[in-house]
Amino acid sequence: MGLRLYDLAGAEAERRFSPYCWRTKLALTHKGLAFDTIPWRFNEKAVIAFSGQDRVPVLLDSDQVISDSWTIATYLEDTYPDRPSLFGGDAGRAVTRFVNAWADVVLVGGILRLVVTDIFAHLDEKDRAYFRETREKRLGAALETVSADRETNVLAFRKTLEPIRTVLASQPYFGGEAPAYADYAVFGCFQWARCISSFPLLLRDDPVWSWRDRLLSAFDGFAGKALGYSV
Amino acid sequence: MGLRLYDLAGAEAERRFSPYCWRTKLALTHKGLAFDTIPWRFNEKAVIAFSGQDRVPVLLDSDQVISDSWTIATYLEDTYPDRPSLFGGDAGRAVTRFVNAWADVVLVGGILRLVVTDIFAHLDEKDRAYFRETREKRLGAALETVSADRETNVLAFRKTLEPIRTVLASQPYFGGEAPAYADYAVFGCFQWARCISSFPLLLRDDPVWSWRDRLLSAFDGFAGKALGYSV
Repeated sequence: MGLRLYDLAGAEAERRFSPYCWRTKLALTHKGLAFDTIPWRFNEKAVIAFSGQDRVPVLLDSDQVISDSWTIATYLEDTYPDRPSLFGGDAGRAVTRFVNAWADVVLVGGILRLVVTDIFAHLDEKDRAYFRETREKRLGAALETVSADRETNVLAFRKTLEPIRTVLASQPYFGGEAPAYADYAVFGCFQWARCISSFPLLLRDDPVWSWRDRLLSAFDGFAGKALGYSV
Repeated sequence: MGLRLYDLAGAEAERRFSPYCWRTKLALTHKGLAFDTIPWRFNEKAVIAFSGQDRVPVLLDSDQVISDSWTIATYLEDTYPDRPSLFGGDAGRAVTRFVNAWADVVLVGGILRLVVTDIFAHLDEKDRAYFRETREKRLGAALETVSADRETNVLAFRKTLEPIRTVLASQPYFGGEAPAYADYAVFGCFQWARCISSFPLLLRDDPVWSWRDRLLSAFDGFAGKALGYSV
């Protein structure tokens, strides 16, 4: 049986927007591994209870069940060592963990505040009450309040991307001449926004835009073909 | 002739506080390369004019002259490939550039605002006017104004260290089981503060404190022996 991935979906089954699932999908694609996705929604926690936790991504590989995007990436690297490397060795893997952690804190945290009402609007009706309750608790305010000042807040968000621009001034990808998991860890966050929101997060003259564009085109446009917005 | 490094000094010749020079000194030590340092002050730009630019670190290796801490690190890695690796391969090198860039923007930028008056107080008299003028221009305010709210500002600074804590929850160093250049890129910033300021940047129960402590003890306490403050 081939690889199968439980992948967060909106009201439309083809709207796949989890930043963590995008990391996993790019990692699988980088490894050249074929996989099927199973659309999953927040109210289907019982469906993935067999994984011992209640979040996606959950990857099935024959009799193996792996959850958490970082754990999945290291599983794929160790299980398929003859395929293109995600980390380029142990040191690369260790340092990539920082990029992953930075993306989790700065990008997921920053982008959530900018697109949270757009996420809500794209959710299946059954997911909305859960999403509003958990996210308003996490953010400490109503979703609409959090995103009300986004035209201003996005300016500060763009400044937090400065270390990415420094890297891109010297090399086309975090991974160097070719993309690696560090790229996917960061790209997943932008792809999350792009699949769920028409809000312009990046400006077209930003080097981060060009880098994202290269990744949207990578692997025959795999990520670029996803249902989303051209922003 | 052995390796020689121009190293930023305060009024006391042994007060060495440049974050960039600390990166280089740790990189040289990691490689097991013996080196001498030459104390250098901001008003001695003519002394290093032979390097084609006016900042330290400047490394002399026989007839080679290398400046800029990142360029020096890559020079050492490529010139001494049989000694312990700073990056663990090309992918590790590429991804480390992000850590380096993040440290430049977030740590150097953040720490400067917290310790800038302490730097000023430790400078040679001849360096003070230059330092005040250039830093007040960069910061857009008097040095004393910038650091006036540091008791409050340090709380926000400590929050920006969250991605480091995520990494340290899983591994003892950025480089994994042992330190690598990514560690030195970040550590250099904290060592800068420690050598010039008694202001408590880190709390003792912060995992970042423990990580810094391990690096202060590394290489027979090389960095820990430096003239500075026990904060």
